[in-house]
Amino acid sequence: RAINKVLFFPSEVTCVEHFFSPLSTHSCLCPLPHGVETSFSRLLHYILSASSSLNVCVFSFSEVNLSRALLLLHSRGITIRVLTDRDYSAINGTQIGVLRKAGICVRCDRTSVHMHHKFAVVDEQLLITGSLNWTQTAVQRNKENILITEDPELVQPFVKEFQRLWLNNNPT
Amino acid sequence: RAINKVLFFPSEVTCVEHFFSPLSTHSCLCPLPHGVETSFSRLLHYILSASSSLNVCVFSFSEVNLSRALLLLHSRGITIRVLTDRDYSAINGTQIGVLRKAGICVRCDRTSVHMHHKFAVVDEQLLITGSLNWTQTAVQRNKENILITEDPELVQPFVKEFQRLWLNNNPT
Ligand SMILES: [Zn+2]
Ligand SMILES: [Zn+2]
Repeated sequence: RAINKVLFFPSEVTCVEHFFSPLSTHSCLCPLPHGVETSFSRLLHYILSASSSLNVCVFSFSEVNLSRALLLLHSRGITIRVLTDRDYSAINGTQIGVLRKAGICVRCDRTSVHMHHKFAVVDEQLLITGSLNWTQTAVQRNKENILITEDPELVQPFVKEFQRLWLNNNPT
Repeated sequence: RAINKVLFFPSEVTCVEHFFSPLSTHSCLCPLPHGVETSFSRLLHYILSASSSLNVCVFSFSEVNLSRALLLLHSRGITIRVLTDRDYSAINGTQIGVLRKAGICVRCDRTSVHMHHKFAVVDEQLLITGSLNWTQTAVQRNKENILITEDPELVQPFVKEFQRLWLNNNPT
């Protein structure tokens, strides 16, 4: 049965360490609530479900746990491509430098207009899209939405648009 | 057959007068291209398809033709509710004052966080959502997306969230 979900934010702030260190699930001593499903933990879950590729196209990317998720997928051999906006890749707290240093392919839209998308495509078949930038403010404070779907009529246009934008922003 | 579409922006700038003055379709003398379907004309088409209600929840609203569309629907007796962000309802060029003066119900999120949604629900059964704010820059310049769907699994959560946010921002 195809995934078709909507998540609303802000998300309650809870511990997400179990996504990154499965062995320590039952032993985390941090002060955040544990074992609670939230919009943000569901978002992490779907991103971490990638088994072959992850294409990310987001205006701004500064949220640390989303960055950790990409680093974890990268370490598993998942092909990751990140397209972001030039103006926002330069701001304080951006994770773009961290991703680049780890060897993840990142391209910045260098045009004068905003690359204002906030979507990701997992394994070319699961679309994650909405109003949410990949920032802590968006996740923890703003009123935001994310729609998650496997409907090919919705996913395929985004797969194609990512490819088009990726090629248009070839740095070479 | 249920609508399930994706529109990408920027949209080519073409004449949309025929949406507002059907009689003059063939006689418009403005310098813009005529008779061309674009992402923006499709967006206007879906908004103007409302036959009973339109709920709009957008961070910023300054695009004149989207405002004209709401005024036209209002004149037809469609129930319109607009929820926007306080900070952006005050900016130059906003259409919020125009809508209010025409008698359309508008509420502003008065909290310190951003109401960052960009969605609308037509007749409680067609969802229009994405990265696109209702501004001329978003429509004509930025790289943006809009997803349009009648899938109840996706539409109903937005219907409920709109109702929740609307009641939470009751000005009385
Ligand atoms: Zn913990
Ligand atoms: Zn014209």
